[in-house]
Amino acid sequence: MVGETDAAGPTPGRTAYAMHQDFAHFVARTRQQVEGRLSPWLDARVAEARGRGPEVGLVADGVRQLTLRGGKRLRAVLLAASYEACEGKGGGAAVASAGAAVELFQTYLLTHDDLMDGGEVRRGGPSLPARMRAHFGTASADAMSILAGDLAGAWAQRLFFEVELPAASIGRAAVEFARMHEDVIAGQVIDVRGSASDAQAVEAMHALKTASYSVRGPVLLGAHLAGASADRIDALEAFAEPLGIAFQLRDDILGTFGDPAVTGKPASDDLREGKRTALVVEALRDARAAEALDRVLGRRDASEGDIREAVARIEACGALGRIEARIADLTRASRDALGRAALIPDGLALLEPTIDALTERRS
Amino acid sequence: MVGETDAAGPTPGRTAYAMHQDFAHFVARTRQQVEGRLSPWLDARVAEARGRGPEVGLVADGVRQLTLRGGKRLRAVLLAASYEACEGKGGGAAVASAGAAVELFQTYLLTHDDLMDGGEVRRGGPSLPARMRAHFGTASADAMSILAGDLAGAWAQRLFFEVELPAASIGRAAVEFARMHEDVIAGQVIDVRGSASDAQAVEAMHALKTASYSVRGPVLLGAHLAGASADRIDALEAFAEPLGIAFQLRDDILGTFGDPAVTGKPASDDLREGKRTALVVEALRDARAAEALDRVLGRRDASEGDIREAVARIEACGALGRIEARIADLTRASRDALGRAALIPDGLALLEPTIDALTERRS
Repeated sequence: MVGETDAAGPTPGRTAYAMHQDFAHFVARTRQQVEGRLSPWLDARVAEARGRGPEVGLVADGVRQLTLRGGKRLRAVLLAASYEACEGKGGGAAVASAGAAVELFQTYLLTHDDLMDGGEVRRGGPSLPARMRAHFGTASADAMSILAGDLAGAWAQRLFFEVELPAASIGRAAVEFARMHEDVIAGQVIDVRGSASDAQAVEAMHALKTASYSVRGPVLLGAHLAGASADRIDALEAFAEPLGIAFQLRDDILGTFGDPAVTGKPASDDLREGKRTALVVEALRDARAAEALDRVLGRRDASEGDIREAVARIEACGALGRIEARIADLTRASRDALGRAALIPDGLALLEPTIDALTERRS
Repeated sequence: MVGETDAAGPTPGRTAYAMHQDFAHFVARTRQQVEGRLSPWLDARVAEARGRGPEVGLVADGVRQLTLRGGKRLRAVLLAASYEACEGKGGGAAVASAGAAVELFQTYLLTHDDLMDGGEVRRGGPSLPARMRAHFGTASADAMSILAGDLAGAWAQRLFFEVELPAASIGRAAVEFARMHEDVIAGQVIDVRGSASDAQAVEAMHALKTASYSVRGPVLLGAHLAGASADRIDALEAFAEPLGIAFQLRDDILGTFGDPAVTGKPASDDLREGKRTALVVEALRDARAAEALDRVLGRRDASEGDIREAVARIEACGALGRIEARIADLTRASRDALGRAALIPDGLALLEPTIDALTERRS
């Protein structure tokens, strides 16, 4: 399942974690701009689709609805922050289309992901495959889900080229977009096949599958669109790459140790779903933790007692501590690289708070 | 099933239909350039993928193999011809990446298409879903096929931006690429659901599903990459749109009336597969033809006698004649529009022969 940890709970603009008012305002304004771009644009696409036939309209409307239920727009915010930090002209409005395109790209990924793993619920509503089944019946639900995902991908591509910036900048950003796309698919192959066998391999998988399009991609897209120098691009990549992995590791921890009242889902879900997170793979190296995990991992009917025991073992064996230490290392590397990007103070003020927002969040 | 009428039989460069030597040489040279671009590029991608894990390598290699079994490169040839006709600089080599990208885009479409309709054979070898099943077993074959298609789409995007032409031209072409993508998916939805109920609706479906990326898309991509004027783009669209539909209608006729020795497949295949071609939908308006079709359409075990009877009825009721007349009308419209494109004689000499090549072919 594609991680989508930003779908529920407080927005970055509302968390208390080390974000000053400027950043909170920036986040709120960016979200508003992205919604303002997405909503009428998607309405127009759905109207066009209906003109081609009622069934094309239903598929298109499914894509529209899932995309508009999009939560915190983390990726669009990162893209806009990076654009501003690289002294891009015209403010967030100029790159709102690019942020909206990344959101549509995510709809494409989530749709194929939910089809592959049978996900029924997404962002508090039916997943696209569940919706397609309701509209078209079981016989063509899979085909319609593949096509709904493909349509979201086509729309992402179309919207991206509506960005009103110099063609050369868009061209460089498009190369990064394609790289992000390629990485996510490679990560998905490894994830679906469950072939990552140790914590390092799980981390590499997440770097491809999640960090690529959640953090690195948006940051580099924003930088390319702003026409950033090659040196600055390199520094921002060195900032975004570890940050994306730390973001995912925090997600793994919250999935097992998070406060259900804040994360919005039971802490046992990751274990019961059998997710082979870095945390779990690390804990499996300990014999007693492995034994406890064996009773709950991938078992939907695991008892609460066994879940508590496994969670306690993950902590007791040192796995939790090692993942926390890894997050701290990655965060430090990210912060150091940001220092090398030679940003103006206003730029630093936008990107620096994203480190805590992504790695110290509680949901 | 996505039409892929260019996969078998003689190449445009080898048919006897109204193509002079210049055009034949151009076709041969373009094919060579596209293969020369695709083959090492795909080898490099597969090597990268293997570095990410053996299973990523297997998926990537499947995409590579299907793409290299690509036949006549009709779309790449059309793109290159249009580029030259619009006086694009640098010759075919400059746009070989764009043609190769369209070929990868087709691999993406064919892969999802074969997954949706259970196609086992493609281009004389296993379809990608069949190959994925052989590599990964039934349990994850569907997921790997979705991802293989997605990977081909990501590669198409990446290769397209490696075209060495001015960014502004690539940007305009990218908008057309996205439009082509969107149209194909809409056409696929209508086709999978079988919701086109008369000949006009079937034609509209094919305009979206096949003509869009087989003819209109390649022609307009070439024109945009060459920096063609808006007037010329309009004229070329008016040339390509009817030509793409005529191309598909000829395909429908060959699927039922073609010489199996030339088309390489039994003339009964379209009927036995239950394809609702324009020809069939037209024939269903006649009571006796409808009765004969009812005994064979979508029936894999239909007798040879019943097939012969249905084919005779399709001709006798006038459906064949009406589709032939429609092809003639569309071809005339295409030829007239080409006249309005105000091409230089050398340009006309490249695009004009494509009309006969696409609509008078025997395979």
